[in-house]
Amino acid sequence: MRLLRYKSASGINLGVLKGDGIVSLSGLGDYPTMLSIIAGGETALGHIAAFVAAEEPSVLLTDVQLVCPIERPGKFLAIGMNYRKHADEGERHGIPTPKQQLWFNKQTSCLSGPFDPIDPGVTEKLDYEVELGVIIGTAAKGVAASAASAHVFGYVVVNDVSARDWQFHSPTFTVGKSFDTHGPIGPWIVTADEIPDPHDLRIRCLVNGEVRQDSNTNELIYNIWDQIAYLSTAFTLEPGDILATGTPEGVGIAMSPPSFLQAGDIVRCEVEKIGMIENAVSAPSGGTGH
Amino acid sequence: MRLLRYKSASGINLGVLKGDGIVSLSGLGDYPTMLSIIAGGETALGHIAAFVAAEEPSVLLTDVQLVCPIERPGKFLAIGMNYRKHADEGERHGIPTPKQQLWFNKQTSCLSGPFDPIDPGVTEKLDYEVELGVIIGTAAKGVAASAASAHVFGYVVVNDVSARDWQFHSPTFTVGKSFDTHGPIGPWIVTADEIPDPHDLRIRCLVNGEVRQDSNTNELIYNIWDQIAYLSTAFTLEPGDILATGTPEGVGIAMSPPSFLQAGDIVRCEVEKIGMIENAVSAPSGGTGH
Repeated sequence: MRLLRYKSASGINLGVLKGDGIVSLSGLGDYPTMLSIIAGGETALGHIAAFVAAEEPSVLLTDVQLVCPIERPGKFLAIGMNYRKHADEGERHGIPTPKQQLWFNKQTSCLSGPFDPIDPGVTEKLDYEVELGVIIGTAAKGVAASAASAHVFGYVVVNDVSARDWQFHSPTFTVGKSFDTHGPIGPWIVTADEIPDPHDLRIRCLVNGEVRQDSNTNELIYNIWDQIAYLSTAFTLEPGDILATGTPEGVGIAMSPPSFLQAGDIVRCEVEKIGMIENAVSAPSGGTGH
Repeated sequence: MRLLRYKSASGINLGVLKGDGIVSLSGLGDYPTMLSIIAGGETALGHIAAFVAAEEPSVLLTDVQLVCPIERPGKFLAIGMNYRKHADEGERHGIPTPKQQLWFNKQTSCLSGPFDPIDPGVTEKLDYEVELGVIIGTAAKGVAASAASAHVFGYVVVNDVSARDWQFHSPTFTVGKSFDTHGPIGPWIVTADEIPDPHDLRIRCLVNGEVRQDSNTNELIYNIWDQIAYLSTAFTLEPGDILATGTPEGVGIAMSPPSFLQAGDIVRCEVEKIGMIENAVSAPSGGTGH
């Protein structure tokens, strides 16, 4: 299933894609939020599948505005330097290839919708990073890689938008990875049953129609199961937590000369079998002192 | 006011300290959570102050178990190397003094109560860090340092418990700062009106009664207003977000020889005018492969 959130006259609705239309879940009272569906696990998905099978779409996909497919989860984590050729790009820019998985946070406040504008804010080095995003299902603590797939609820496309100047203020990346609007995801959550092998998906990023990144998730250094095993050794991954699994080579900062995003640019991120998100860069909203 | 959360027969209650007792806020229907009080701002605090003035405590502080004084906020950020002598300790251990504010995340899933046990999990290098914690009140974006104090709701004591081996897996610190139970805070939230100058508070950490850290928040390199200004240039600080403002010298890893926490140790963190939290180190709960 493709679970989504969209704007309607009554506010934000939950829905499921059916053909070219959306079946609203507002008639299904038990699950008021995407997080409640995720927490509901197989039981919730069973109820929803039966409901959707019996209902007709109430609205066309093309007639609504999709919003971020999940409300604020507890964590939005991303792994750096996790495609070999991108790690090589990083080394050329002074980031050594890490000896362990290199995780950083995107603040959950940066989450935005699949077609929302990207606000540069105060950065002068705005960049894109297409990634496959994992949505955690059942809580995971001390989970071995061999058992990790059972903890995945579904997948999304992520653009790990990065303010490169602010990113390198500190080796933690914390501030430059989390500008408001710098975490568009979507367009929907594709449930895990539809992606039997998440490690063989073409992944691309286009800027104004020009292909900048074009790789495959089979190039991941640490695969998704390794990622869940590593993180869950330290702490609990909870229902709805988002893992951005790394970006391939081709980011703007590594181009020669570097090419950063400008107001008016259109960034399109695609992952095979999941879909695409497309975000226009707006004029900067302004910075300090307001 | 000192706003707190405690266990009662009916679950988690909100309360306010009055003398040596607690006035339960369960009779005040408008604010079911601490986050709703924080979001309610001055209006909420006015209602609560009037309510508490008219009520008698229903229970003694000594008769209840305090729990984490806030539900899961959006962010739990901490600044590293923010006391001069601690930055010197860091340099001796290979962490260069940063040129900008060095922020990292503690995952909100590590938040725990003021007297809850600390679980070492898989670390063999468990360490303590007493810090003054700031609770953000009204949302802050692009706020100048001179206007930042208006965005502080209150203060807590934080122990930024650290798994030093895992912390240095990567320069982002992400995984080793967020083991489950490694974020005890409390004992309550002291509202900002009670702390006219947060930059002149004695701050101490004791392990088994031995003083390990003893400094004053007047030693902060970047003060709280600088911190809010810097972060809010990049992204929105939201009601309930927690900022841990740095730890002074005296951490276990910097002792000669290093001294890490062991099962059975009692760690007491104190900040003047706020109070103290005290956490026992439990036996490790186990790690991978479960």
